[in-house]
Formats: sequence, structure tokens, C-alpha cells
Amino acid sequence: TVYMDKHSWITLSQSDPRALYLQVIEQIQRRVAVGDLPLGTELPSIRQLAAQTGISRNTVIEAYDQLVAAGVLRSRPGSGFFLLERGSRHLVGQGSSNPQLAASVTSEMWSLFDEQNNLKLGCGWLPASWRETDDLTHAMRQVMRLNRTDVLDYSSPLGSPELRDLIQNRLQALSINVIANQLLLTTGASHALDLLVRNLTRPGDTVFVESPGYYNLFGLLKLQGVTMIGVPRRPEGPDIDEFERLLHLHRPKLFFINSVFQNPTGSTLSLGTAHRVLKLADQFDFNIIEDDIYADFQDVRAPSARLSALDGLQRVIYVGSYSKTLSSSLRVGFIAADPPLIKSLVDMKMLTTIASSRFAENVVATLLDNGSYRKIVCRLRHKISSQHMQIQALMKAAGWEIFDKPSGGMFVWARRPEVTATQMMLRAAECGVSLPPGSIFCPNASNTPWLRINIGYADDPRARVFLTQWTQADVI
Amino acid sequence: TVYMDKHSWITLSQSDPRALYLQVIEQIQRRVAVGDLPLGTELPSIRQLAAQTGISRNTVIEAYDQLVAAGVLRSRPGSGFFLLERGSRHLVGQGSSNPQLAASVTSEMWSLFDEQNNLKLGCGWLPASWRETDDLTHAMRQVMRLNRTDVLDYSSPLGSPELRDLIQNRLQALSINVIANQLLLTTGASHALDLLVRNLTRPGDTVFVESPGYYNLFGLLKLQGVTMIGVPRRPEGPDIDEFERLLHLHRPKLFFINSVFQNPTGSTLSLGTAHRVLKLADQFDFNIIEDDIYADFQDVRAPSARLSALDGLQRVIYVGSYSKTLSSSLRVGFIAADPPLIKSLVDMKMLTTIASSRFAENVVATLLDNGSYRKIVCRLRHKISSQHMQIQALMKAAGWEIFDKPSGGMFVWARRPEVTATQMMLRAAECGVSLPPGSIFCPNASNTPWLRINIGYADDPRARVFLTQWTQADVI
Repeated sequence: TVYMDKHSWITLSQSDPRALYLQVIEQIQRRVAVGDLPLGTELPSIRQLAAQTGISRNTVIEAYDQLVAAGVLRSRPGSGFFLLERGSRHLVGQGSSNPQLAASVTSEMWSLFDEQNNLKLGCGWLPASWRETDDLTHAMRQVMRLNRTDVLDYSSPLGSPELRDLIQNRLQALSINVIANQLLLTTGASHALDLLVRNLTRPGDTVFVESPGYYNLFGLLKLQGVTMIGVPRRPEGPDIDEFERLLHLHRPKLFFINSVFQNPTGSTLSLGTAHRVLKLADQFDFNIIEDDIYADFQDVRAPSARLSALDGLQRVIYVGSYSKTLSSSLRVGFIAADPPLIKSLVDMKMLTTIASSRFAENVVATLLDNGSYRKIVCRLRHKISSQHMQIQALMKAAGWEIFDKPSGGMFVWARRPEVTATQMMLRAAECGVSLPPGSIFCPNASNTPWLRINIGYADDPRARVFLTQWTQADVI
Repeated sequence: TVYMDKHSWITLSQSDPRALYLQVIEQIQRRVAVGDLPLGTELPSIRQLAAQTGISRNTVIEAYDQLVAAGVLRSRPGSGFFLLERGSRHLVGQGSSNPQLAASVTSEMWSLFDEQNNLKLGCGWLPASWRETDDLTHAMRQVMRLNRTDVLDYSSPLGSPELRDLIQNRLQALSINVIANQLLLTTGASHALDLLVRNLTRPGDTVFVESPGYYNLFGLLKLQGVTMIGVPRRPEGPDIDEFERLLHLHRPKLFFINSVFQNPTGSTLSLGTAHRVLKLADQFDFNIIEDDIYADFQDVRAPSARLSALDGLQRVIYVGSYSKTLSSSLRVGFIAADPPLIKSLVDMKMLTTIASSRFAENVVATLLDNGSYRKIVCRLRHKISSQHMQIQALMKAAGWEIFDKPSGGMFVWARRPEVTATQMMLRAAECGVSLPPGSIFCPNASNTPWLRINIGYADDPRARVFLTQWTQADVI
């Protein structure tokens, strides 16, 4: 513990799985929130805090830097760090959801959306040039023409009945059998995850996530004050032995998983591992959220195992989306779950957004119904598949190690032997490439030289230089 | 207190402003949530609970009925009420946001969306026949044609820069001066309110709302476990004396208000009352959320006072929307507030939905930019204004008392002297008319014969019968 002012101390815990700088950030923010640290307070200097806690000065710098970026601290050159006094009288982030707890994720998301000139080689979606718009705009015109209420009115609480029927058929092809009141349409999969996290977890609850895994989800869980424990991801799914070991230490309410073309590793759950995950869920009594937004990147004729199919949606909740394959602008996703949960979620959806877009839902329904969507994703799959072969060959020849050899989806998870995380980021910057640091995919924010490469951006000359031109000098 | 089983009691509080049946519901749900009442438990009979608490049997029936509808209780004919045992193993509503706490609101929302044949005379939006689609679909085609990324990509974190520029101009006409980083686009105003409630309030916090007021907001606050206190609404705004009296009893974090064409009374805040509300906010240190979604129903040449304009967005947060005047299907709303709050809200928006629809935002931008929106709302205002005159004259002649004489907006708040709330609902049902009960607009759910009439539906023959044909026999 360290003396900060006459009222406050910082307590860092060795058993806390999170990085130390995150613990520092959180402790300071908690004290601000409860009023322990009045606005204007001077914080201990970097040197003082490092000396008194025994953590490195770099860790303190990292924490203070993020607090400055988040508008919590102000740095007065030559005199130290102070809690910002705001001119206005608004409460900020003092509610049940505190985005400052997820500052590392939101700052990464900001950089994905900014207008910088660097190539976003680690982006979470395909470039517009990879997507088709002809069938999409044709369907949009058709919906406008056929039913004027579609461009005017709220959708029904569960979402467009036409689209829900069509999704029901699609899920049947994955052996996931649902009835109409087991499907809820949402404003994209992120909205689905948010509804689920709010409905099923409370601050202080523990959930399991994949490590590496989906960092927006980590941010959402931090926002809600939920504790995450990472289960290592292997090419065939979660590491079952480690999973079981962790289950003897923690009692998670939920486990979140991408079954197919996992983000960020691109790997796909095997049938055997799926079965063992469900056995653990029965034994240790937790629910599973199967976030399957990359499903349509896989050939429909040879679908992989889904936890939802094995389990019959008893313990598993299924989430899907049309953002990655069709359009992120339409904001259409869905949840399949057992009827009492769907009833509770639709009530929450009504209270928090009234309803989703009838127009967007019926555009997706039109494309599913007339077969265009099937053709769009088929063409996309072929293009992606040949790109994967080409890029993976090129990376392998240039000395990269690839975690799994995905045949589809957008991502390759890769590192270079002997290259540290910092060297990776330096070299990327030299090449005009920006990438999320590997640590952001780790729920405990641990440093890692592994990187998520989005193959959709790999044809850019800057990507080619970064992927293929490494010399001994880059690895000093 | 009443003995329910060996562990649990119900405690009803006289000082709790909410209706007793809501207290009963909440107590039972809390006990279920914390595990005090195991699934399958038999509850006390209606007679027992009424006898032991001293509340009426009708109150217990109301509470149990709602718990049955919400899937919490099961009624076994002849044997009593039991906590439902679910076949599946899902947690439902055990998270930080519990929609069962807002069951009265969600059941009303469900009835607004259902396919029943009754005329929804109290609906919260205009019928499609009152809205225009030509300019709207024209703008949609134009956005599709001009920029293919608009139909494919996420919008930027704050939302379309073009639309934010145009909203900035519109707010200037209301004397609300904002800069670009003071505006955040949302998926409709409901999403805006949800972001604000999550960011600014915690369970157990107290906020003030208007009574009568917007019931979706009441549901949202209940969902989040926030305590509401109702400030009586007068034709010129909140009752200032009562407001001040309540401020000596409670310390609200926030006050929510519709300034113009308030929902449900249709009344508009006067300049003097606005000033006094802001003085109270300074004196008792609370923030104000000015939900101004009916702004564009008012003539732009003679705008009313806005709290945001008087205050310069220091204490006031402004919310707007295009759902009521243009399209509910586009899902476009916005928040104007001071920059640190907007930064915190945009981070929350990214974590919970990634981004809003670039297409929908740029469709609204196109209509604002080419002047079509101005013409659409101008025509709509004229139509609404003459409808108000006609319907109010007809109601007055038929013996209705109208709370205020709105010249615009969708609502008239009215009652018939000598007619009780129950008689009102019975007569409506006889006429094939469905209406939300007046009590739902009261934050403490108290019974009231006042009704919200949406003048957009008043031309229907069923509405005419209900509004004009009352005999002595209806008032027994």
C-alpha cells in the first residue's frame, strides 16, 4: 500500500490476474468515484508511486498516461499530476456502467476509426472494396417500393417476423433448432452481447473468456464491472485441462466463445472439444454464450460443430450477425436462446431502444429470401480462401509463425520468433502499418508478440513490406 | 411484515411513493434474485398475504397476475401460486438490469405492438398515413448512389460528421450553441436515455421525473434500479413550489423533462418556469436531462424556451430525435452535452454497439441539407394544428376536460368529470379502442382517470364514438 494523501492508499494484488497498470488506474478511479480523492488533488509523482508500491516507473507512466487521455488527470509540466477539475457541473462515469474502466479498449477502437494515414492491418472488418453492394442496394430499393411502413415504423419487439423465419431456417442447417419465440433481432451482435451481459451479470461476477479473445467483449465486461478470467485458446478450442483447473478456482456465471474462425486466432472448435466444454458446463453449472458472427464465412455444406446444436440451447445462448459478411451499416444481429430468456431480453430491448429498424431487418430478409445473400457469401468465401492461401504462404516464407492455418474468416494470428511485442509495433509503425497490440486480446492484458492480421488488408504495399521485409536489424 | 416461508418476509413501506402492488412484486423478485425463495416455493395465498400485510386482495391479485405474466410465478388452479421452475438452466434477469422490475411498462409496450384489432388511440407515434415517404425514399436512393461505403460501413464513433454539422445549425436556431465534440448521434432517443442513465446513475440513486410523464423512461429507470420521484406537471412546466418542497426531502442526481409538447400533457415549458427550474438545479446541485424529441413539431420561427439554451449546457443535457417527425425505422437520435460527458458516452456507445448506422445518419443529413425535412415538418405542423383545433372542439363539446390546449405535438391529456379510470377503460374497450391506463404515466403508478389521446388516430370511427358518445349509463 502507498500513502497518496491523508485519506487514500493504493493496494495492488499479486493474485489479481490483470496487469498492474490497470490495477493502478482502477484504484484511482474508484477513489475518485466514491469521493475519496477530491478534484484538484495532486497525485504522488511517478517516482514516489513506483518506489512506494514496488512497481516499475514504466507501469506508473502507463497508468498516468491513460488517465490523462481519459480526462481524469491533468499533467502540469514540471509540477506533477492532478485530478482534473472540470468547469462544468456534470457527473461523468459515476453510473453503474463506467467506460473509464475500459479505457484501453476504447482508445484502441478510437484508433480504428480515426483518419490517420496508416494502414489498419489489424482491423476487425473487411475493407469496403471486398464487399458487394449491387444486390444490397437492389434489396434496399425493393423494400422501399413494396412497403412504405418499412421505411417509417419501428420493427416489432422481437424483430421482423420474415427475417426471424429465415434465420430459423438457416440455423436448422447448423442443426440448431429454434421456434419463433427463441429468436430476438438486435442492433448488431454488440447490442446482443450488451443485452446479455446486463441481463445475466452483476458487478463483481466472474465470467470466463477466451485468451486470446475478442477485445470489445473484454471492454464491455469491464464497463459492467465484471471480472474476466481467460481460458487459453488452442487450435481446436479451449484448453480443456486448463479450463478445468480454472473451474476449481473460480465459479463463472458464463463462458464466452467464438466457435468458428475465432477472433483473433481464426481457429475453429472441434466436435470433441465442444462436447468436453459442455460436460464442464454441466459439471460446474455455468452458461455459455456462443458468439458465432463468423458463421457465414464457412461453407454451408460442411458446417462445424456448434455448442448450441449439441446442447439444444439449454445452457448455450447463440449470437449471430450480418455485419461482417453483408453490411455494418444495417446493424442487424440476433440472439437465439430459451424462451424465458428471450422474453426477458426483448423486454430489456424495448426499455432501452424501443425497437430495431424495420427497414434494415427487411432488407436482410429480402437478400436471404431471394438467394442473393447465399451467393454473396459464397463469392466472398472463395475470395477469402484464396487470399488466405496466398498470404499465409508469403508469411511463412518470410519467417512468420502462424497460430492456426485458417481456411476462412478474416484473421491470421501470427508472430515472428525472436521478435518482442515492442519490436513488432516499432516495425509496423516504420512500415506505415497500425495494429492493435497483442496484449489487448489478452483478458489480463499481458504482453505478447502475437498479432492479429486481417487478410483483407494484406495486399496493400505497406502490408507487403511489413509482412515480408524483416532484417536482422529489426530484431535488435 | 408477513411470514412467507421460513426465511422470508415482505415489508411494505408507507413512505415509498410507489403503488403497493409494485412493492409486492419487487420484494418477491428481490428474494428470488438473491436466492431466498427457491424455485418451486409456494407463495402465501391471496387471502393470506392480504390479511397479513393489511393490503387489499385486489392489490395482491394485481401483483401475482403480473408475476404470472412475467413468467416468475405459476398458478396451479385450486392450489395456489408457485415460483416457476424452469426446464432450462439459464439465469434470467439476475443481472444488473432486471426487466421484471419494469413489467408494467413492458406489458403496455407489448400491447402497443400487438396485432389486436382495437384502435390504439393512445399510441406514442403518428400513424403511417400521417407521414410522407417520397422525400425520404428519394434521399435513401441518393445516399445509396453517391457513396457505397455508406451502405456498408459503421458510422464514426460520434456519428456522421455531416449530420452533426447540420444538427449544430438547427440547435443554433434554438439558441443552443454547441461545438462538434458536444454532439453524439445515437440509435434513437431511447438509446440516448439509456446511455445517460447507465453513465450517470447507480441502483438506489434518486432522480426526479415529471408526473404525469413519459412511461418508457419510468421503465428504463426501474430496469436500472433507480428510484423515481414525480414532480407534478402544470401547463407551464413543473410545479415549482412542490418541486422545491420535494428537494428538501430528496437529493436527486437528475431531473428529466420534456420542454415542448410534453408527453403526455402536450404542454410547453414557459420561460419563467424554465428559469426557476435552473435556479433550483443550482441551489440543490442536480443535472437536468431535457428530452426534446417533440421540438420539430413546433414552428421554428417562434421557438419556446429551452433549458439547454438558458444554461449553456452546463447542467443540462439535451436529447433529440428524428423518430417522431421523420421515421422510427431509421433509428436516429442525438445527445448534446459538455465535452467530457460526450467523450464518456461515446466510449460507452462503442463498447455496447460499436457504432450507429452510417446509412441512416446520412439519409437524415441529406433531408436536412436539401431542405426536404424543413418542408416535411412544416406540412406536418399545419396538418397537426388543424387536427388539434378540430378534435379539441369536438371533445370539449362532448364534455371532456382538457389539461392544456396544445397547438401542436401528438397528444391531448384529457378526462371526463365524474368518470373513474376503470369506467374510462371499460368504455374504451366497448368502443374498440385501447389506451394505456392513466396510471402508467404516473411515476408512483397511482390511479387517474386522465388519458393520453393521440390526435393522429382520432379520425377513426371508433375514436369518434369513444370521444363523443357518452351517456349517463357509461358513468355508473
